[in-house]
Amino acid sequence: MADCIFCKIIAGQIPCTKVYEDATCLVFMDINPISPGHTLVVPKKHYEAITEMPAEEAAALYKPIPALAAAVKGALKAEALNVLQNNGRAAGQAVDHLHVHLIPRWAGDGLGFRWPAKKADFAVLAKQAEGIKAGLERK
Amino acid sequence: MADCIFCKIIAGQIPCTKVYEDATCLVFMDINPISPGHTLVVPKKHYEAITEMPAEEAAALYKPIPALAAAVKGALKAEALNVLQNNGRAAGQAVDHLHVHLIPRWAGDGLGFRWPAKKADFAVLAKQAEGIKAGLERK
Repeated sequence: MADCIFCKIIAGQIPCTKVYEDATCLVFMDINPISPGHTLVVPKKHYEAITEMPAEEAAALYKPIPALAAAVKGALKAEALNVLQNNGRAAGQAVDHLHVHLIPRWAGDGLGFRWPAKKADFAVLAKQAEGIKAGLERK
Repeated sequence: MADCIFCKIIAGQIPCTKVYEDATCLVFMDINPISPGHTLVVPKKHYEAITEMPAEEAAALYKPIPALAAAVKGALKAEALNVLQNNGRAAGQAVDHLHVHLIPRWAGDGLGFRWPAKKADFAVLAKQAEGIKAGLERK
């Protein structure tokens, strides 16, 4: 895509601090890291969101992630690691080219995990599950 | 694993509100939802973290996620969606059986995205990338 910063990085028109590359993805350091060692896994083909991606391409994108996550965690001597993929502004997506964040974490790193969980109403859960199943069946 | 709540759910010893199942994973509603429609994708085989998972199994786990994410987002009429997988207590992991969160999101839902990003020092990024690459090469 002409105006996509990640497409330009993939095309070599904008530099990046590269970590890894294969037929499917380019992996580089985030220039606005949430934590030290914050790394991005970016599919070479432009998709805006995971909901648009063919199943086989999602599989290929996540295939190297166990090794990448272990390497990032090991190199940074991190205690923990988030694998996060945001779809849409309201989910925190800043660049409209699908990407997976590998975020090293440490106890007391101040990032916390502030999303409050609530006890569910099981009747509501059942209704939501029916809606999701119906959506899957229409695929 | 004997004491793992997700292994017990997969074995049918504890009930769940099931959404989907295939050879690799079981998908059900989170009973402590972060947002309405919060859904978990759980591999049937017990791994604690993504760093332990064979590449092929990570690929199989994420293969149905585009369709699942679209179905969750559609059923809940969500504006956006996070695909989040936490490894380790310091990353917010509460159950020690690898799982992927599908979290529907809406603008102003109050969950925010509070992790502050900082501008990187490129010399630091280059050094971190070298460490990660060295770790990948040792694999």
